[in-house]
Amino acid sequence: MKKYLTHHEWQIIENGFHAEHNRISESVFSIGNGRMGQRANFEESYTGDTLQGSYVAGVYYPDKTRVGWWKNGYPEYFAKVLNACNWIGIEVKINETVLDLAKSDVTDFKRTLDMQRGILQRQFTAKLETSEQVKVDATRFCSLADDEAGAIRYAIQCDFSGELTLTPYLDFDIKNEDANYDEKFWEEVELAVHKGEGYITAATRKTDFRVCTGMCFDIFVNDKNVTPDIEIFRKEKFISNTVKLKVNEGDEVVIYKYAVNLSSENHPKDALSNNADKLLQNIRQKGFQTMLKEQMAAWATRWKDSDVVIEGDVAAQQGIRFNIFQLNQTYTGEDERLNIGPKGFTGEKYGGSTYWDTEAYCLPFYLSTADERVARNLLIYRYKHLQKAIENAEKLGFKDGAALYPMVTMNGEECHNEWEITFEEIHRNGAIAYAIFDYIRYTGDKAYLADYGLEVLIGIARFWAQRVNYSNQKGKYVILGVTGPNEYENNVNNNWYTNFTAKKCLELAMESIEWVKKNCPEKYKAIVRQINFDETEEQAQWQQICDHIYQPKYQEFGIYLQQDGFLDKDISPVDDLEEADRPLCQKWSWDRILRSCYIKQADVLQGLYFYEHEFDEATIRRNFDFYEPLTVHESSLSPCVHAILAARLGYHDKAYEMYLQTARLDLDDYNNDTEDGCHITSMAGTWMAVVKGFGGMRVVDGKLHLNPFLPKQWTGYSFKIRWRGSILNIKVTQAETTVENESGESVSLVLSGKLTEIGGKTS
Amino acid sequence: MKKYLTHHEWQIIENGFHAEHNRISESVFSIGNGRMGQRANFEESYTGDTLQGSYVAGVYYPDKTRVGWWKNGYPEYFAKVLNACNWIGIEVKINETVLDLAKSDVTDFKRTLDMQRGILQRQFTAKLETSEQVKVDATRFCSLADDEAGAIRYAIQCDFSGELTLTPYLDFDIKNEDANYDEKFWEEVELAVHKGEGYITAATRKTDFRVCTGMCFDIFVNDKNVTPDIEIFRKEKFISNTVKLKVNEGDEVVIYKYAVNLSSENHPKDALSNNADKLLQNIRQKGFQTMLKEQMAAWATRWKDSDVVIEGDVAAQQGIRFNIFQLNQTYTGEDERLNIGPKGFTGEKYGGSTYWDTEAYCLPFYLSTADERVARNLLIYRYKHLQKAIENAEKLGFKDGAALYPMVTMNGEECHNEWEITFEEIHRNGAIAYAIFDYIRYTGDKAYLADYGLEVLIGIARFWAQRVNYSNQKGKYVILGVTGPNEYENNVNNNWYTNFTAKKCLELAMESIEWVKKNCPEKYKAIVRQINFDETEEQAQWQQICDHIYQPKYQEFGIYLQQDGFLDKDISPVDDLEEADRPLCQKWSWDRILRSCYIKQADVLQGLYFYEHEFDEATIRRNFDFYEPLTVHESSLSPCVHAILAARLGYHDKAYEMYLQTARLDLDDYNNDTEDGCHITSMAGTWMAVVKGFGGMRVVDGKLHLNPFLPKQWTGYSFKIRWRGSILNIKVTQAETTVENESGESVSLVLSGKLTEIGGKTS
Repeated sequence: MKKYLTHHEWQIIENGFHAEHNRISESVFSIGNGRMGQRANFEESYTGDTLQGSYVAGVYYPDKTRVGWWKNGYPEYFAKVLNACNWIGIEVKINETVLDLAKSDVTDFKRTLDMQRGILQRQFTAKLETSEQVKVDATRFCSLADDEAGAIRYAIQCDFSGELTLTPYLDFDIKNEDANYDEKFWEEVELAVHKGEGYITAATRKTDFRVCTGMCFDIFVNDKNVTPDIEIFRKEKFISNTVKLKVNEGDEVVIYKYAVNLSSENHPKDALSNNADKLLQNIRQKGFQTMLKEQMAAWATRWKDSDVVIEGDVAAQQGIRFNIFQLNQTYTGEDERLNIGPKGFTGEKYGGSTYWDTEAYCLPFYLSTADERVARNLLIYRYKHLQKAIENAEKLGFKDGAALYPMVTMNGEECHNEWEITFEEIHRNGAIAYAIFDYIRYTGDKAYLADYGLEVLIGIARFWAQRVNYSNQKGKYVILGVTGPNEYENNVNNNWYTNFTAKKCLELAMESIEWVKKNCPEKYKAIVRQINFDETEEQAQWQQICDHIYQPKYQEFGIYLQQDGFLDKDISPVDDLEEADRPLCQKWSWDRILRSCYIKQADVLQGLYFYEHEFDEATIRRNFDFYEPLTVHESSLSPCVHAILAARLGYHDKAYEMYLQTARLDLDDYNNDTEDGCHITSMAGTWMAVVKGFGGMRVVDGKLHLNPFLPKQWTGYSFKIRWRGSILNIKVTQAETTVENESGESVSLVLSGKLTEIGGKTS
Repeated sequence: MKKYLTHHEWQIIENGFHAEHNRISESVFSIGNGRMGQRANFEESYTGDTLQGSYVAGVYYPDKTRVGWWKNGYPEYFAKVLNACNWIGIEVKINETVLDLAKSDVTDFKRTLDMQRGILQRQFTAKLETSEQVKVDATRFCSLADDEAGAIRYAIQCDFSGELTLTPYLDFDIKNEDANYDEKFWEEVELAVHKGEGYITAATRKTDFRVCTGMCFDIFVNDKNVTPDIEIFRKEKFISNTVKLKVNEGDEVVIYKYAVNLSSENHPKDALSNNADKLLQNIRQKGFQTMLKEQMAAWATRWKDSDVVIEGDVAAQQGIRFNIFQLNQTYTGEDERLNIGPKGFTGEKYGGSTYWDTEAYCLPFYLSTADERVARNLLIYRYKHLQKAIENAEKLGFKDGAALYPMVTMNGEECHNEWEITFEEIHRNGAIAYAIFDYIRYTGDKAYLADYGLEVLIGIARFWAQRVNYSNQKGKYVILGVTGPNEYENNVNNNWYTNFTAKKCLELAMESIEWVKKNCPEKYKAIVRQINFDETEEQAQWQQICDHIYQPKYQEFGIYLQQDGFLDKDISPVDDLEEADRPLCQKWSWDRILRSCYIKQADVLQGLYFYEHEFDEATIRRNFDFYEPLTVHESSLSPCVHAILAARLGYHDKAYEMYLQTARLDLDDYNNDTEDGCHITSMAGTWMAVVKGFGGMRVVDGKLHLNPFLPKQWTGYSFKIRWRGSILNIKVTQAETTVENESGESVSLVLSGKLTEIGGKTS
């Protein structure tokens, strides 16, 4: 845990240069716009510790799988998000010395992420070894308005007289730190450099994605645009322009660098460099100040719909805004081919691929804070991968259109290669079905079923129908050999969460068939034909399974049993563990973790959270009281679910304790891993802890429910949600909860158990 | 399956050159002497497909572990047996062309492994592209008498006139094919080359083992020793002598090449090259023919004690002799630091390390066919690793002297890195205890307990006492999270074999304590003091566990249950599987194998085999009848146990079917993997199938039992066993079984149920 960042309501601030934490800062201060993203690396040269990272959405490399021992069925590759062209680089030379904070005496350093406006700023004074001094003020952003563009204002106040050399460059000769075999993934396709501008087009090996990165720049000395001599330079995958300026002490030199990143996902390959050039001219003409205004306006719109205000606790306020900011710069919902990688645009770890995190944790945030099209695109992403999910299931021996969605994917194909996860953590299929249910519950958009949802649900139902087997011993259908959400158990039998989820998938599929058949008969017929669906026989089998699937219980305690045999364990609470044993994942060998009773993240409780409406409070309480004390929360996805359930049960202190565990996870580097990037998907969990936990937001039978309480650590809080066309602003204080309806139509909701009508602005 | 080798009682013969199977032949025709070994690579150059392999016992490299995903507790390295100096090489040049069977017209090719005499022979006629022709007759062996030496006679019949160039060389610049990171493991230390001789000393990286390989040679033309001009050559890790001879058609040129391999395991590092030189001079003086005679005599002695004769089935005769031959050239029992790698000296796969194969499958062969010192040394090997086993257990969270022997090891440290094996296949501890029991049962050498055995047994007992936990649910001690011998199940609970084995270990430890305490009280006191043994408390706990350990049963069927939940599986016999699904390990994904009922190798039945004397026949039959039909025998260690039990139950056809599955495993390349090396440890299983299966050999209460039957495919068979100082020759025919006592003392044994006295030669 680190505490070097300054608390502030709207900004993340590093006061003084913490070179020892530079990789952490680079993660935390990352900027992005859903289409491209950039770690907070320095524009000028830096020889200290750094993880360079520039990312272009949707572009990946299928890195050859690395295993210790090959198991049949493992995928050939692991898709990796790619570190792409360094477009921010501006080498600064003062007389003969390159400016490098690792070799300078740095004072007045301040790095600021202005979340309200979506910009990264940095100021510092650097005294070189050769004793010249400069003051730098740098501002940059990835434009939300022009989402293929970034802009930099880099201002140098010269406290010396002599020569100042500026070399803006593009460097595509980069590599990924986590390459499995230390290979470089990019090859040069095309490259041009002229005075004042240039571009490089590179292609990924194997996948042949093309990215064209272009740059241009303008230089001002003491506010006067200058056109100095430019020396151009090129080598493989690298271009630069070098400008030498004679400066006098007191001069201010400002370079505006504009850059664009165009990918072949969005442009024909042969038009890439032309389109890049056009966009570059366009933004240069627009100019930095106009772009900045657009940026501020775009972020203001985002915040308008998604802000959470916390009163009486600046650290909490900063934490929740940081989470919302990161989520909004990671995924904008414009493009249904994109998704939310666990590190977003802040690092390359975990391959930048899609996990069940999206459906289980992220969807509610986008449902409540953005147009429903955004969440819908997240669902369509999986619809588009249905065929691959069917192929994935076939590789594991399933047939007849059974679909198993991958654990980790970029293009629908499985990437992961640990058998206990890849092949066995099949509950992910349940999350994908749940997300369809959750989306429709929130939006009421049942038509989605006919358009996309039904095919996915049938593919998933077919999988479960083949994955169960009938146990003569139990006289029930069982599901053997699975890993549940609690990954501290592997290859268990009858994980309750998985069995229950399978049943819910089958039921949801059957209900959806019913609805589509009745409401969109033509579409239904087309689907039946296309997927060769045997309505009667398949559904009869599904019903049979639903009626007789085994659901392990611990009758004596009135709880669901995490899996067969769980009670054979030595069961003692986490509180009895020695401090030296924590975290278990670092202190204990894997087998010891597996045979212990300790739970990594919500498992039975995950099921109770998803389908809370089907369980009475006493049942939820008994399970929570049994399982939570055994849970070590060693996944960043664990606390939010517990916070929500704890709040539901009136365990307000527990709810707040859980909320705290992720609210500032990256800002305070709780787990010593923020240097690899931020935990983007768990940020949505933090938002959920506030809105669903403290705010008690639920949707039941098409009706919005709110049941807020105020954590005693705060004096008040408010959040905004979109609800069926309206925007509601919920404010909670000690005294009262008020709901303001910012839109035109009147909304009826259940507030603290009471049906309430909230008038619209015009009503 | 391949059938290109000629059947012969004493020889393995490849008639005609099968270049496409060359790697297989190189494995099968390997020669060794327990101290060094050599694949059947060619002396002359060969540009075709080959796996070069020359091995020096006890020398290994700790190759950096390769994993996909690191789990806490994994070892840093995997010890690899090392491909060492190529000492057989003799480049042959005819005029300007290098002799290379890949580029010649080869006729009359014959490769022969003469198992009776322990020599490898090869004859061929090669017509070069340049049309010169030679006939070659090459003989080589690794000397049993001088176990650091090898000798080659390479005779060339010249069917041309011109220049013949011979270049005997040593090449230490070699690499292992299965290096994890493609590194070379040897570095040159010292090198000298003179006319007619030379040596290279190289060191392994990291471990700094030193090996000095030396060579010298003599050349004869038409039986006359010649001393031609020699051109010497050296480069890094390589030396050679080049000899040019003018030859006339019809001339016979013979080169005798002598080589030695001395390792720092057996010589002081600074004396290596001196000692190598001495040995080299010594064997050269002795000469090839004398060495050959010694070799034949030494092998005759081996065969005298260990031969199995099968009448009426040449293929079977060849198979069993091949197995006995390989076992005898792999391990001679001279050195308690050595053990039996799964590939012996025939390949580098599986690292050449020690597995539980040694205790579970190999020990009985050496017990019955060699001096008891040989088996004793195999036990002492583990005694010497006790401290490492304690450290290994500590790494996994155990304490107070609990010992967990490694799954795979070279020096006592764990090498393996699959959590489900490394951490969970803990039943290996049981095999190590069983081997002590088995050794004492066979030899009567109880003193071994006081000298070595007891400490090992206590370490193992302490492990089990900590590894169980008490299940309140079951009111029993349970063992959670294990992998049994059937590796087609991972991370199961209460594997019967493991639970039963744990109990046997605890009992054996307590009985042994009793014996040592009574018979060697001083030694007992010393042990108690040294290992801080709390006799009363620890034994009370062990007894408690023995009395209350859970042993899963399927009451209805009267069988032991392989593990908790086994009956939830879809249980159907292997016979119902489609041919296309076999072998499962190649055709099914890992998860599908895991959740199936199919069994890789004896699991419950392994326990019944080990402790057969504790179970009545009806119990063994019920378990065999249930489990064998579910067993796919996809481990080469599976059939032998089933053959023995089937024979015991009177299922003679099944016993023979099982025997056949491994008898010619490598000779016929059943599993398409002989090219990597031979399955040395399973060869002992084949021997057991004959002697314990067909021969019904058992030891009960210190008495030898024989209960032979004759497979109907044979007309007779005989085998020899050592029994407490005597050598017995058991002959089985249709008509009768005779036992001949080749030694002096009279022996009493139970023959087909009848106590019989077999008079000695002098009695």
